[in-house]
Amino acid sequence: MVKYSATLDSTFGALADPTRRAILASLMLGEISLSNLAGPHRMSLPAVMKHLRVLEQAGLVSQKKAGRIRHCQLAAKPLKDAETWLSQYRVFWEGTFDSLERYLSRTDQSEKKEDQKWPRRNRRRKTRSS
Amino acid sequence: MVKYSATLDSTFGALADPTRRAILASLMLGEISLSNLAGPHRMSLPAVMKHLRVLEQAGLVSQKKAGRIRHCQLAAKPLKDAETWLSQYRVFWEGTFDSLERYLSRTDQSEKKEDQKWPRRNRRRKTRSS
Repeated sequence: MVKYSATLDSTFGALADPTRRAILASLMLGEISLSNLAGPHRMSLPAVMKHLRVLEQAGLVSQKKAGRIRHCQLAAKPLKDAETWLSQYRVFWEGTFDSLERYLSRTDQSEKKEDQKWPRRNRRRKTRSS
Repeated sequence: MVKYSATLDSTFGALADPTRRAILASLMLGEISLSNLAGPHRMSLPAVMKHLRVLEQAGLVSQKKAGRIRHCQLAAKPLKDAETWLSQYRVFWEGTFDSLERYLSRTDQSEKKEDQKWPRRNRRRKTRSS
């Protein structure tokens, strides 16, 4: 449990940076060399390597060397764990947003039904008899 | 897009701490007063308030005052956004872990089928004829 908590600390900590999230997005297309990874971010290689170190320590990226070229690869397991943790709260956003929406559409529908059941003429009659 | 990115920064940043995650877990049961929230965490009120400020700035918690008592409530919207961001990567863990599992179980099954098709006696015969 403590280990799981520490893993979540490092996963969420690593994801709290837009460059690191952009690096993960680049890795969605597959394995990529370090220099190709640094290119689109307009950052120096040492700066990218610093971010990669954080991602690697969080277990989100793995690196391997092929000759003189270093390749990076996405490791999805910590993302899965983070998503599992977040999904505990799904009942909240589904319970609030969805049910409010459903409640409003139901209220709207029942109002329409009421209008169909009690046309103006009948409704007036009902009011008089009661 | 920039605003969305900044929101994710603060959401993931706020979630990268075990005490803040524990505060959110406490709020799952509903609205809770500040003193009742501080109790189980064995922390001073100022320390809990510091964490609450981070959660509030990330839009994860809202506070309201009823008389002299301050109540805290969970706000799930940023959690939903974070889960949506993470779910982009679902194809990775489903694509790697699931398919590996499926591949292994399929290999296992086909090996069993092969064993059924070619009992030792027949297999020997087949080998001789080929």
